Amino acid sequence: MLTAKLSIAQNKIVVFQTDFGLKDGAVSEMKGVAMGVSPDLKLFDLTHEIPAYNIWEAAYRLEQSVRYWPAGTVIVSVVDPGVGTSRKSVVLKTKSGHFIVTPDNGTLTLVAQSLGIDEIREIDENVNRRQDSKKSFTFHGRDVYGYTAARLAAGVITYEQVGPLVPKQVVSIPFQQAVLDGSTVKGDIPVLDVQYGNVWTNIPDTLFNRLNPHVGDIVHVSIYHKHQLVYKGEMPYCQTFGTVAEGKPLAYINSLLQLSFALNMGDFAKEYHVSSGNDWSVEASLK
Amino acid sequence: MLTAKLSIAQNKIVVFQTDFGLKDGAVSEMKGVAMGVSPDLKLFDLTHEIPAYNIWEAAYRLEQSVRYWPAGTVIVSVVDPGVGTSRKSVVLKTKSGHFIVTPDNGTLTLVAQSLGIDEIREIDENVNRRQDSKKSFTFHGRDVYGYTAARLAAGVITYEQVGPLVPKQVVSIPFQQAVLDGSTVKGDIPVLDVQYGNVWTNIPDTLFNRLNPHVGDIVHVSIYHKHQLVYKGEMPYCQTFGTVAEGKPLAYINSLLQLSFALNMGDFAKEYHVSSGNDWSVEASLK
Amino acid sequence: MLTAKLSIAQNKIVVFQTDFGLKDGAVSEMKGVAMGVSPDLKLFDLTHEIPAYNIWEAAYRLEQSVRYWPAGTVIVSVVDPGVGTSRKSVVLKTKSGHFIVTPDNGTLTLVAQSLGIDEIREIDENVNRRQDSKKSFTFHGRDVYGYTAARLAAGVITYEQVGPLVPKQVVSIPFQQAVLDGSTVKGDIPVLDVQYGNVWTNIPDTLFNRLNPHVGDIVHVSIYHKHQLVYKGEMPYCQTFGTVAEGKPLAYINSLLQLSFALNMGDFAKEYHVSSGNDWSVEASLK
Repeated sequence: MLTAKLSIAQNKIVVFQTDFGLKDGAVSEMKGVAMGVSPDLKLFDLTHEIPAYNIWEAAYRLEQSVRYWPAGTVIVSVVDPGVGTSRKSVVLKTKSGHFIVTPDNGTLTLVAQSLGIDEIREIDENVNRRQDSKKSFTFHGRDVYGYTAARLAAGVITYEQVGPLVPKQVVSIPFQQAVLDGSTVKGDIPVLDVQYGNVWTNIPDTLFNRLNPHVGDIVHVSIYHKHQLVYKGEMPYCQTFGTVAEGKPLAYINSLLQLSFALNMGDFAKEYHVSSGNDWSVEASLK
Repeated sequence: MLTAKLSIAQNKIVVFQTDFGLKDGAVSEMKGVAMGVSPDLKLFDLTHEIPAYNIWEAAYRLEQSVRYWPAGTVIVSVVDPGVGTSRKSVVLKTKSGHFIVTPDNGTLTLVAQSLGIDEIREIDENVNRRQDSKKSFTFHGRDVYGYTAARLAAGVITYEQVGPLVPKQVVSIPFQQAVLDGSTVKGDIPVLDVQYGNVWTNIPDTLFNRLNPHVGDIVHVSIYHKHQLVYKGEMPYCQTFGTVAEGKPLAYINSLLQLSFALNMGDFAKEYHVSSGNDWSVEASLK
Repeated sequence: MLTAKLSIAQNKIVVFQTDFGLKDGAVSEMKGVAMGVSPDLKLFDLTHEIPAYNIWEAAYRLEQSVRYWPAGTVIVSVVDPGVGTSRKSVVLKTKSGHFIVTPDNGTLTLVAQSLGIDEIREIDENVNRRQDSKKSFTFHGRDVYGYTAARLAAGVITYEQVGPLVPKQVVSIPFQQAVLDGSTVKGDIPVLDVQYGNVWTNIPDTLFNRLNPHVGDIVHVSIYHKHQLVYKGEMPYCQTFGTVAEGKPLAYINSLLQLSFALNMGDFAKEYHVSSGNDWSVEASLK
């Protein structure tokens, strides 16, 4: 069955991300099809709890975690409100050696920028589509994306056999880049750390460090939704949550090395009605 | 440890379905026991979010996804409100070559019909029960079903060693079959596409096609709960969600090739208070 | 890459428990790092739905399920409100041959007692920390615990190479031990069987049996929260739920062989406002 040689990169690992949830059989169907392609594949999940149709969050979760998988891993992301329309189905090969199989609908906005585009190929559905699936118009996740990912990861097809090369550009969702404006850093809130209610920004430590912050310094923070002030306050810059009292706010650098805000043992987002997305912005400065 | 030869079918894959949820250690216990049987097994999940005690939904999820796993896969389904009572514990071998390990309490209603019954064996608990589990009366999922599934999948036992053959019939839950009545198709709503709120019927495309529908045709839809009208409306027959405006209804054939209703980018079930089960029925006709 | 020989115990299986939830990429990052250590590892989940910061529940879930995994399994538990503070990071080797990688913050309270302490080693973060992770102060789960667990399970390091031996004692959360007081058994409610609303106590069958109960005997049950009576009632002692009518209470021995209370086809905890934790206690006696 495995007739093509593995490219240098493929490592038989497939990681799935969707907005399908875990309550029905959809994720299982994708994995069943993959195991039918090759029983040697190793299948993992990124998350299946992307809010329905939320392409921005799909993009962010890829940005957050793809880099921690070994080079050669094939990641499938199916958040696809335009299923069946003319959006392209592609496989991005990043400069880091990861393969991302997805509709090109904005899902690649962040990883294309951070990991870099080595090549993009459009999936040729004449070849890379599960047999007997022609009658079904709506489960591309199983019949095209998951199937192609499994075949690529297993070496049944080479990367070249995915389909034709397309220009090195992806559909991008506009978003507020992080900037330094005088003595203030500005950015957006790409996502919440939902489990704990921590507020994560897109402001990298390297930018924040240009304010020359020291542990214990007081940070002034303003948070806006559609340019309306939602939160204004000050908090110490900390390396550990436990250095402030329970329920007190702190600023810190999160595990993605970006400026973040939290309440020790509490839920900052819930307490101050802060959410995430392109229409949320942040300003921070030192006292 | 692996002394029996693998039957033609077993492929070392075990897929678990339960109503245990993912919040406690129950699913992990089942998998730990399976890995103790053989470290070569490959363990997957169908879902663990079947609503507690909902045998009908367990039956439907099997119907939805078993066929996508390779022949020889062992699927364990434990939704077992009658645990410890006299319901039989069985392994169904389908004509498609899948093994389904489950209490025979209605869970097999749909797959027995669609995939066909090759043989059914009753689990002989004198042999196929985890050692030292005799004192425990309530975790058959781990000690009988999961354990037997792991031993069968790994080839520790043959299918014949599961236990004695029993008649080729399963406990069945009554449900409304899909029918054509004049120029109207009728059926039920076996399940919702919960993540998106789409309404799935049991009316196959082959039956609906006898109305000779064309893309763009207007479909009249009535939905009843216990014979009371809950929804009445019309919507175009579409191949893709994106062909109607956001928030507008459409009729389509879902990935199981059954007639379904949705709101583009919305939640049809929530908007119109539609749920699923045997007491929900549907009628559809073309204008 | 694999230079050290596997200790007798390690079996390449890693099981993850956290309070991260499944909505973001955190669990996936841990698994990606582990697969980068060795593609031969087999990765599983205990649960990721421990309530945020709830060390007691983390301790209980370990107690519930570790014993069902084969000896040699490496279990990682990261519920770590004190991340970045001076709590020790350790690997407990139990007398049962399991390795538990965790902050020593109470998580080991129950397994240290039930499975026994063979040795405890403190993780030497100079060696056992993911490269390039020095700038990140808050994701020890990925960079220290998951990374060390993967290296230990894969045999990249021996157990001795985890770090120095420390005294055979763990940080313990105080809790009410189960006792027999005259003709009454007393205990606490360490956890609920959340999916079904069953109330589990820490009273083992061996203790309850000293009351000489027979199936069908009536059990008097009182449940207290902070010494205030919350529930008082009587129910038969049963081996199966189905022996009482739907909605009726019963006492039974659960799959952990501990005295428990349930409503057949109902939710005891919800119906009577019962929760779990150290401040909940139970008394039971026979009529």
